[in-house]
Amino acid sequence: MITLNLLYPNKDGAKFDMNYYLTSHIPMLKRVLGSALKGCIVEQGLGGRDPGTKAEFAVLCHLRFDSVESFQQAIGPVAGQIRNDVANYASEAPIIQLSDVKVVS
Amino acid sequence: MITLNLLYPNKDGAKFDMNYYLTSHIPMLKRVLGSALKGCIVEQGLGGRDPGTKAEFAVLCHLRFDSVESFQQAIGPVAGQIRNDVANYASEAPIIQLSDVKVVS
Repeated sequence: MITLNLLYPNKDGAKFDMNYYLTSHIPMLKRVLGSALKGCIVEQGLGGRDPGTKAEFAVLCHLRFDSVESFQQAIGPVAGQIRNDVANYASEAPIIQLSDVKVVS
Repeated sequence: MITLNLLYPNKDGAKFDMNYYLTSHIPMLKRVLGSALKGCIVEQGLGGRDPGTKAEFAVLCHLRFDSVESFQQAIGPVAGQIRNDVANYASEAPIIQLSDVKVVS
């Protein structure tokens, strides 16, 4: 099991439209990735470790796939469509990485 | 539901002992946080979005709690013990943030 992590920086002046993201972007992702997408978690940054500090990331999104291969196969034909929608909700490009899931409990 | 995200930077020369982390640190976390800890996900960075690129984070850990209050209450008495163990497995301090869970599917 692997995760595609998308981490949107919480820069001063950055904009993120959570309503659009949850009601339009994520449903589109689910539609175009189909059965290859095994799970989706969206989190909104509240703050740093200590009270009153700023979260490093405004939004974290974790998309679960069975393997790197199944992710690449699913994303290939729709990557452009997904990327083109980002400007509709975020002013900052996300940090994107693939991770191997070691523990879920 | 909230998450404590711990993101360990994947700097050149950084060290992370995944074996110690999974067999000693995470079990200790579960023990000292008790029933306040509602879930735990550990992921190991594989690479960036494009094949052959480097993951921004070596390890991502997501700890789930019912609320900021229940997290603070649980972590208060044991924060020092947890922090003191980090040097046993990681050469880099993690980015730490609290996030509000918007979607799990």
